[in-house]
Amino acid sequence: MNAGIKVFAPASVGNVAVGFDCLGFALDKPGDEIIARFSDKPGLRIVKITGAKGKLPYELEKNTAGFAALKLLEYLGEEKRGIELEVHKKMPCGSGLGSSAASAVAGAMAINELLGRPLEKKDLLRFAMYGEELASGGNHTDNVAPCLLGGLVLVRDNESLEAHRLPIPRGMFATVIYPKVEILTKDARNLLSKTVSLKKMVQQNANLGGLVIGLYHSDIALIGRALQDVVIEPQRAHLIPHFYEVKEAALNAGALGCSISGAGPSIFALSANSLIAENVGERMKQIYSDAGIDNTLFLSAINQAGAIKL
Amino acid sequence: MNAGIKVFAPASVGNVAVGFDCLGFALDKPGDEIIARFSDKPGLRIVKITGAKGKLPYELEKNTAGFAALKLLEYLGEEKRGIELEVHKKMPCGSGLGSSAASAVAGAMAINELLGRPLEKKDLLRFAMYGEELASGGNHTDNVAPCLLGGLVLVRDNESLEAHRLPIPRGMFATVIYPKVEILTKDARNLLSKTVSLKKMVQQNANLGGLVIGLYHSDIALIGRALQDVVIEPQRAHLIPHFYEVKEAALNAGALGCSISGAGPSIFALSANSLIAENVGERMKQIYSDAGIDNTLFLSAINQAGAIKL
Repeated sequence: MNAGIKVFAPASVGNVAVGFDCLGFALDKPGDEIIARFSDKPGLRIVKITGAKGKLPYELEKNTAGFAALKLLEYLGEEKRGIELEVHKKMPCGSGLGSSAASAVAGAMAINELLGRPLEKKDLLRFAMYGEELASGGNHTDNVAPCLLGGLVLVRDNESLEAHRLPIPRGMFATVIYPKVEILTKDARNLLSKTVSLKKMVQQNANLGGLVIGLYHSDIALIGRALQDVVIEPQRAHLIPHFYEVKEAALNAGALGCSISGAGPSIFALSANSLIAENVGERMKQIYSDAGIDNTLFLSAINQAGAIKL
Repeated sequence: MNAGIKVFAPASVGNVAVGFDCLGFALDKPGDEIIARFSDKPGLRIVKITGAKGKLPYELEKNTAGFAALKLLEYLGEEKRGIELEVHKKMPCGSGLGSSAASAVAGAMAINELLGRPLEKKDLLRFAMYGEELASGGNHTDNVAPCLLGGLVLVRDNESLEAHRLPIPRGMFATVIYPKVEILTKDARNLLSKTVSLKKMVQQNANLGGLVIGLYHSDIALIGRALQDVVIEPQRAHLIPHFYEVKEAALNAGALGCSISGAGPSIFALSANSLIAENVGERMKQIYSDAGIDNTLFLSAINQAGAIKL
C-alpha cells in the first residue's frame, strides 16, 4: 500500500446574482479533500468518508465523488484498477456553496492525479459533471466549472461545457454567510417559475453584460450596479430567514452586491477589498446571531487556482 | 437668414441576436440628415421634409426629430428661439434599421450643434429618447444609443440610460439586407410572448456574456458561437420572407452570425472582414432577387463616430 495523493476542491458561489446556471466563482475555503491510492483489490472503492455525519453513501453510483471518479476511470479504460478513495467532507452539504460540485471535482481530480494526469485539468469538467448531475438532478456547471478551474467563470454553453474565466479586479473579496437552515437544491429549483417575463429577461441580460464589462475594466462601481438579480432572488429570498435584512446590512457596510449563493441558504457579498469584506461579514453575522440562528462566516479572495493537488 | 448647420445620424442594428432591447451597433450608412438654422420667427418649426414620401408629419409633437429637438430646447429654456429644421430622410422607415432613432438623434444633435454645444454628446441620449418613444411606443435605447454614440453599445439600464461601448475586433464588418416588405415595430413587438422560459433565458444570458467576452478578446470564433438568438428570432422569423434561407446562406458564406435587425424585416450578418461581408451580401441578395423580392443591400464597418456634424 502506498500513501497515495491528496487533492482539494474548493467551495463556490453559483449564479452570482445575474448569471443563473451560467456564472460562478470559487472560494479559497472551505472545500473538500480526497485521498486516492492504489490498492491490490481490483476496482474503485470508497473506503472512508469523514465530515458528512453519515449522510453520504459509500456506493460509487450514489456518491458524487465516487461517480465522477468512476466515469473518468471508465473513459480511461482503467475501471479495473484497484483504487481506494477517502472522502473528507470539509464543507457543509446543502449550504448553497457547491458542496456536491466540490466532491465531484475532487473525485475526478484525484483519479487524474493518481494516474499521472492522463487528461488536462479542463477536460475533467465533463467527468465532474456526472457527479454534479447525480446530486442536483440537472446539467448545471455554474459551480463545477469555477471549482475545477478557479476564478469567476461564465459557462456559455452547458452542452459543450464551454467555460470562460473572467478578469477579477485586484483585491476583490467575497463574504459568505451560511445560516444553518436546510434548503435542498432540488426544492429551491422546483419552486422557480418555469417562465420569466420578457422585461425581466432584458434587465437580467443587460446586467450580466454590464457585469462582464465592469470586470474587464475593473470598474468597481459598475460591478456594483450590475449585481442585481431581478429574476431568481425575489423567488427564493423567502426561503432564507432575514435575507433582506442581511442584504441591506451588507450593502450599507459597503458591499458592491449581495445575493443568494447558489440555491441558498448561504448569502454572498462581493466587496472592493478585504477590509470592507470583513466589515460586511460582521454586519451579516450580527443579524443571524441576534436572531439566534446558528451560522458560519467565510471570508475569501476569489480563488484563482481551483482544484489542486495538495 | 443663415446657412445653419447640418448633422448626420446613422442607421443602426438593434438587438444583435442576443441583446434584445439592450444591444445595438451603428452603421456607416445609410442615415438621416438634418439642417438647423436660426430664423426671425420665434419657436421651432420643421420647414422641409424630403425622402419620406409624404409619410412624416410636420407637427413637432408627432415628428420624432421635431419632438427630440423640442424637448432639448425646452430643457435649455430656449423653446422661444426661432429655429427652422429641414429633415432629409435618407433611409427607409419601418426597415428595422433604427430609422426613428436616427431622426430623433439627428433632431437633438442639430439643436445642440446650432446652439454651440451646450450639452455633451452623451447627454443628448435622453432627449433623443423622447423622439424614439414617440415612434416605437416604448423606452428602448438599443438603436438610439449606438446611433448617437457610435460603436456597439450595451445599455445596462434603460432608466438611467447607462450605455457602454464595447470593443470591436479590427476589421469586423456588417452586412445588412432590407427586403422591401412592411413590418411595423409595434406589431413585431406585440407578437412577442410576454414570457420566456427560464431555460431559454439562461441560454440567451450566457450567450450575451459570451459575446461580450469574445469582443474583449477579439475572439472571432467565440463571437460566432455566441450570436445565437433562442428567444426573439424564432418568434419573428416568419414575418420575414425566406429568413432561414437567407440566414443559412450568410452562415455558409462565412458570416460569424446572422439574425434579424431590430424588429425586421432587415437581416444583419457580422463577418470577420469586409471581403467575407461582401460575399455574404451577394448570397443574401441572390435569394431575394431569385424570389422577386425588391431589396437593398448595405455593407458597412461598425460606425465608431455615431452622429456627427457634417
